[in-house]
Amino acid sequence: MTTSRLEAFSDGVFAIIITIMVLELKVPEGHYFSDLQPLIPKFLSYLLSFIYLGIYWNNHHHIFQAIEKVNGGVLWANLGLLFILSLIPFTTAWMGENHFEQETVFLYGLNLLLSALMFFILENASLKHEGESSKIHAALGNRTKEYFSIFIYLLSEICAFYYPLLSTIGFALVAVIWFVPDKRIENLLKS
Amino acid sequence: MTTSRLEAFSDGVFAIIITIMVLELKVPEGHYFSDLQPLIPKFLSYLLSFIYLGIYWNNHHHIFQAIEKVNGGVLWANLGLLFILSLIPFTTAWMGENHFEQETVFLYGLNLLLSALMFFILENASLKHEGESSKIHAALGNRTKEYFSIFIYLLSEICAFYYPLLSTIGFALVAVIWFVPDKRIENLLKS
Amino acid sequence: MTTSRLEAFSDGVFAIIITIMVLELKVPEGHYFSDLQPLIPKFLSYLLSFIYLGIYWNNHHHIFQAIEKVNGGVLWANLGLLFILSLIPFTTAWMGENHFEQETVFLYGLNLLLSALMFFILENASLKHEGESSKIHAALGNRTKEYFSIFIYLLSEICAFYYPLLSTIGFALVAVIWFVPDKRIENLLKS
Amino acid sequence: MTTSRLEAFSDGVFAIIITIMVLELKVPEGHYFSDLQPLIPKFLSYLLSFIYLGIYWNNHHHIFQAIEKVNGGVLWANLGLLFILSLIPFTTAWMGENHFEQETVFLYGLNLLLSALMFFILENASLKHEGESSKIHAALGNRTKEYFSIFIYLLSEICAFYYPLLSTIGFALVAVIWFVPDKRIENLLKS
Repeated sequence: MTTSRLEAFSDGVFAIIITIMVLELKVPEGHYFSDLQPLIPKFLSYLLSFIYLGIYWNNHHHIFQAIEKVNGGVLWANLGLLFILSLIPFTTAWMGENHFEQETVFLYGLNLLLSALMFFILENASLKHEGESSKIHAALGNRTKEYFSIFIYLLSEICAFYYPLLSTIGFALVAVIWFVPDKRIENLLKS
Repeated sequence: MTTSRLEAFSDGVFAIIITIMVLELKVPEGHYFSDLQPLIPKFLSYLLSFIYLGIYWNNHHHIFQAIEKVNGGVLWANLGLLFILSLIPFTTAWMGENHFEQETVFLYGLNLLLSALMFFILENASLKHEGESSKIHAALGNRTKEYFSIFIYLLSEICAFYYPLLSTIGFALVAVIWFVPDKRIENLLKS
Repeated sequence: MTTSRLEAFSDGVFAIIITIMVLELKVPEGHYFSDLQPLIPKFLSYLLSFIYLGIYWNNHHHIFQAIEKVNGGVLWANLGLLFILSLIPFTTAWMGENHFEQETVFLYGLNLLLSALMFFILENASLKHEGESSKIHAALGNRTKEYFSIFIYLLSEICAFYYPLLSTIGFALVAVIWFVPDKRIENLLKS
Repeated sequence: MTTSRLEAFSDGVFAIIITIMVLELKVPEGHYFSDLQPLIPKFLSYLLSFIYLGIYWNNHHHIFQAIEKVNGGVLWANLGLLFILSLIPFTTAWMGENHFEQETVFLYGLNLLLSALMFFILENASLKHEGESSKIHAALGNRTKEYFSIFIYLLSEICAFYYPLLSTIGFALVAVIWFVPDKRIENLLKS
């Protein structure tokens, strides 16, 4: 099976998830700027999730550029990732509507953590399928960024019950780390 | 007519159906974990339907890899399948919201049964179009899995009025059977 | 400009319109079959619109298979068609919710009529762009089907204020006429 | 990185944004034409935004036809543009529901202004990446249309607090200017 149809389907799901979130921004009753104020935390959480989904789309793209064939394992790891990511509009809205309350931040963080783990599993499935001498194996390297992200997520999850705002800073930090496209794979593909 | 645009359109519909379901998970009022509890049956039914749509997307992909040309019959069988599948978010939400009540489970099962029959019709339309000596004919073989699934669905439909939870186990069982990508076609394409 | 990206974008819009309609089927309160009864007219109107959108997608596909280049006229005629079609979920829901009341049937018919006219304009823009000796010119022929459909729509619009159900039969009749893929173009592409 | 997957993803987002707006047209209670009357301002604002998104999709297409490679800068400028555009259904609905009240018109204009600026940044990122001797550099020329649009937007923003209807005429004027596909790039690609 080639990667092209899997990429097309995934792109569709990414595009829908990223735009569905805006539906959670319900149009307020009044027509003054002050009527928009209650939407600010929702807007900020939407912005953060948009960046995260942009990062996942980008990294997803990198992975499937480096691998050549798709087997059942890769296919289901990919669907698992899409499932977890499809929950982000829900957890984003819950956190935004409740002004970053402790348990809502924890759930959002859990969603991010599970997304990271599913992406890790997808990388593993690709590595296993393509073999040790493959492009993807060399490209991913020692995956420091992945381990570091998961570490920050775990810290943020513990923080969530005491200083939920600190957790959101943790989430933003991981976003910044990944914001720059993954040089590892890019460099390898160039060479 | 080539299969590429039909696949692109179908992929779009699959991607939308699979992500639209998450919209049915309405954000609850409170901000405690306990406020999420009423959503658990909805979440479970969403998970089951996600897996089913993943399976249909996967099998759909296999079919259109094996056939080369599309005629009117295949085209309308495909649209029929997409129509039946587009009802899944509705039947999923009805079943999930009503905690797997008898008649909601029956309707969900009916939706799965009709999906299976439409897929069967799509296979037939492809077989008829491609001829007896075609790849798809050899690939589909005796279609034991299809007959078995329909049999389980019929059993589950009868069960639905007495032991609805047993029916959902039936639905999950069929999902497990199909979870593994269809080796028949995969093997043939390799050889 | 090639037709490929225009087709991809149009396919996306078609896929979204066709699946968005199912969102109008709101999950009812109760958990008995009888609770679904009020949804029957909505379901029937959804089914009719699904078939119509399937037909438009199919004919759209045929047009863009026969033309080779896209200019500004074709591009904007295409966007005009997509705009009119994007209103179908709204007019479908209004008609379905109000049990095929006179004015709702009239508006639905108006939507179908405008869609047919926009498609006619798209055909004209393509004909003008491709020239008299083009594939598309020969393929479309005298466009009897198009004129006949518009005639039936006009009749149905008059009927709508007296016998709205007769109008819906008119709409269904046009759907049946177009249901069979357009042989004119298909034949030409084969030869 | 090639532009194809970026275009496919962007097309998906464009298609979803453009069709999601129709969801804001809520089906009214009654079944008479007069029940549709309150929807007219919403419909007009939807029409304007549909045209705007059509223009952005079209210009987006032109840009990515002229550039050959995508780097991190282009990628994130593109995501930034998609983010700003994804807010258009919200600002459109707010303006339409409140019958073009001053502050709602201002916010809508701000959304258009930010979209224009993000598109400008995307053009800059492309220019920087492709270099002075590139197709895109020659194609964009002195960008009079871009500067003029931003000027009109700024004027409209000031107007919004005094004569909001004049602002909407400003928005419509810019739409008309861009309605014709960008000849600059088209001409260059032909030569």
